[in-house]
Amino acid sequence: MSNSQIKLEEINFVPDKNNNTPIYKQIVDYVNSKVACCDWVIGSKLPSQRELAAFFNVNRSTIVQAMDELKATGIIEGTAGGGTRIINNTWSLLMSSAPPNWSNYIKSGSFKSNIETIQTINKQEFEEGIIRLGTGELSPELIPNILNDEIIKGVQENNVKLNYLGPLGLLELRQAISKYIKRFGINVSPNSILIVSGSLQALQLISVCMLRKGSTVFVELPSYLNSLQVFQSAGVKLSGVPMDKNGIMYWNMKVDKHASDNSSLLYTIPTIHNPTGMIMPNERRVELVNYCKSIRLPIIEDDAYRELWLEDEPPAPLKSLDDNGSILYLGTVSKTLAPGLRIGWIVGPEPVVERLGDVKMQTDYGASSLSQWILYEWLESGLYERHLIGLKKHLLDRRNFVLDILNKYFKDIASWSVPKGGFYIWLRLNKKISTEKLFTLALIKKILINPGNIYDFSKNQYLRISYSYASLKDLEYGLKCLSEIIFDM
Amino acid sequence: MSNSQIKLEEINFVPDKNNNTPIYKQIVDYVNSKVACCDWVIGSKLPSQRELAAFFNVNRSTIVQAMDELKATGIIEGTAGGGTRIINNTWSLLMSSAPPNWSNYIKSGSFKSNIETIQTINKQEFEEGIIRLGTGELSPELIPNILNDEIIKGVQENNVKLNYLGPLGLLELRQAISKYIKRFGINVSPNSILIVSGSLQALQLISVCMLRKGSTVFVELPSYLNSLQVFQSAGVKLSGVPMDKNGIMYWNMKVDKHASDNSSLLYTIPTIHNPTGMIMPNERRVELVNYCKSIRLPIIEDDAYRELWLEDEPPAPLKSLDDNGSILYLGTVSKTLAPGLRIGWIVGPEPVVERLGDVKMQTDYGASSLSQWILYEWLESGLYERHLIGLKKHLLDRRNFVLDILNKYFKDIASWSVPKGGFYIWLRLNKKISTEKLFTLALIKKILINPGNIYDFSKNQYLRISYSYASLKDLEYGLKCLSEIIFDM
Repeated sequence: MSNSQIKLEEINFVPDKNNNTPIYKQIVDYVNSKVACCDWVIGSKLPSQRELAAFFNVNRSTIVQAMDELKATGIIEGTAGGGTRIINNTWSLLMSSAPPNWSNYIKSGSFKSNIETIQTINKQEFEEGIIRLGTGELSPELIPNILNDEIIKGVQENNVKLNYLGPLGLLELRQAISKYIKRFGINVSPNSILIVSGSLQALQLISVCMLRKGSTVFVELPSYLNSLQVFQSAGVKLSGVPMDKNGIMYWNMKVDKHASDNSSLLYTIPTIHNPTGMIMPNERRVELVNYCKSIRLPIIEDDAYRELWLEDEPPAPLKSLDDNGSILYLGTVSKTLAPGLRIGWIVGPEPVVERLGDVKMQTDYGASSLSQWILYEWLESGLYERHLIGLKKHLLDRRNFVLDILNKYFKDIASWSVPKGGFYIWLRLNKKISTEKLFTLALIKKILINPGNIYDFSKNQYLRISYSYASLKDLEYGLKCLSEIIFDM
Repeated sequence: MSNSQIKLEEINFVPDKNNNTPIYKQIVDYVNSKVACCDWVIGSKLPSQRELAAFFNVNRSTIVQAMDELKATGIIEGTAGGGTRIINNTWSLLMSSAPPNWSNYIKSGSFKSNIETIQTINKQEFEEGIIRLGTGELSPELIPNILNDEIIKGVQENNVKLNYLGPLGLLELRQAISKYIKRFGINVSPNSILIVSGSLQALQLISVCMLRKGSTVFVELPSYLNSLQVFQSAGVKLSGVPMDKNGIMYWNMKVDKHASDNSSLLYTIPTIHNPTGMIMPNERRVELVNYCKSIRLPIIEDDAYRELWLEDEPPAPLKSLDDNGSILYLGTVSKTLAPGLRIGWIVGPEPVVERLGDVKMQTDYGASSLSQWILYEWLESGLYERHLIGLKKHLLDRRNFVLDILNKYFKDIASWSVPKGGFYIWLRLNKKISTEKLFTLALIKKILINPGNIYDFSKNQYLRISYSYASLKDLEYGLKCLSEIIFDM
């Protein structure tokens, strides 16, 4: 039996005063329906009558009347503490059979729930009036009109039909990507490229195809990967490796001597690291690739932010140094063009991408062909490159704008480095405060932040501030407000 | 060490006679490159010299020269049987470190490979000149121009920006679907609808969220689900339940008394069943729903083909009879509009769709927003409904055309029922021949079929013939040819 408290936020109902059904009865019906469909399970406690009256904007007596009826039909009962609790549901009263035990089912699967902060972020992002200070995506104003006339014309000339595609994805797109990534020094055929529905899916596929329970994925500390459950759900351990200013201190990896038998991997973001913004210099790259080669440890190189450099062009990807097929390279347009396309790619040895492609077929039968054709047009027409030039100017302006705000409001309470690309400023608070508490206090003021402990379970003094998403006005207001909250803590 | 035979089909290389590099050297370089990138692993056997000479269209002596050089550098060695085998790779000769043991990695994950016939089908479908007699999708000529002027206008008026979406998918699309499925007697709010990247992903999410190792999914025999590895990869057993002409004989389910603790499920396609085309009459539906309710066994109702009825409108979905939230209902436009959109939906109790949505976020961060917006326009503009009317006329013509062909060429070698909707004719061969052998013989003639044992491991006498995909010319030629192959077997 559940013992949970039903929260007011879970109530998605407002009594309709113009309805012929009395208000108290509408509330009874609503409670019955929530109990009936198992949204509210047996044992759950209802909010207090006072809270319900305020929430529904009705007299307390209306709530009392509703509760009396619910008690009379045996749905709820009073508790010792004066509250009410669900004790039965309509079917077990009215019918012979109760609904399936859904709460048992949804706990059964192998896939873990998102960590709670992330679940909250995922939901709150779409609430009215929320200021998103940590969001890792482009502001709507920075996302181009994906279906502009030039693109539409191209698609129509190709007489595109949206059938299923083969296991590796649209050949034309793979050819275009093969051509495009040559500029980064990566020379591979389209057969070594698998189209995926974003980089996150790439990781998901790797986790179910290539890793066994108990194997290890090494990650930078902090790392974006720590915010995901994808590897943990496959029973894989994440092992954090500290970074210095040049990136992962690979010599600290505690690699098992039988690493390759254990199917361990290294996940790294060497170029405009998420969340720190670090760019690994070339010397460290060469060392890292040679070291991993010497111990036969494959590398997943996540290169999502490469093209968003704001000062000097970063060194070539690790993959360009890969002369024996040790590296799986992940690319995407989610950060540079439009996350809603949900298109990324994996570059790797043919047998690996074929295995991943086969499982992708079994998982979702391939990425949206529509998205693939549209992206093909963006790449082939040169519009993508032109878009990047303008985008980077906007991001530079936004970065500088936020640095000015930080200098104004945060210089006594935090420290940071100037990021040379990407979306994020990795802010270190001077005070040792709980960033989880800060998260809650900020949310009350409708400010959504990404606390550092999402990316590094041990640290509680960092925030990932993003200058890519919120409007300039919201960035200024939100950061000012945040500095005040921190000041008062 | 691998012991596999490299097949000629795996060789994607033709020597260039105009190149300055001698042909034998080009072949050496090609073999080296395949070995180097681990496409060809140590232990694999090369095709015979005779086969290679024929394949490359060169003299046998050229192959001998190439093999001699590869032997000299230690890449291959002769085997006792006169063949050659890869024994080393360039790096372990030239460098200090070998590449990661990829073949070990790609065998490590929990997710199974597709069954071999399905893998072959997935690949062969995209080969030049193949006639696809079993393909479960609309012919390109039946797929409308998804980005037609009316749709584009709608999208542009909405000023659509392709950002990430919330866990359940695009609200506007969920509202449109909520409205649309009311016509089938399904009354749910948009909060009970999760947008997925096609129905297959719905099953994938259910398998990782709701089922534990050892639980059972009951399926009709035959069933589309048997062609998938999605549940087996989660360690779940499929238990086949025979059908009569009215559908699943549910009283034959061997349900554990503790079904709900074991998190078992029933997967059914009651409306235009895949592959048999059966439509369950209303009486059986009522019985089935009541029975499952009485034992608290949840149902997954896959309704992919509902709208493709060709004679009388089918009875309302099981979901419309579901008064206590026992049924997860799967819808999609993959069969009716365009598979390449990769959009489907799950309708179910809110806590269930929320759990599935949370895991979807962790898997691929949501379905393509582009596809979701475009589908929203198709539904809201009424274009989708209008398209269906025309589509069904074409499908009826195609069905009748194929029935005529079957009457002409198959009446002495097979039997079948007339399907009242969908894409398929479930053909029962009179002769007890191996359909696997038939699959291979047909493929040699460039005809791709879906043998019945994909859908029911025990049966070897059925074929799923699809009238939806191949051109009329190909259907006639392919079926005639197939009948001749069967005749000769």
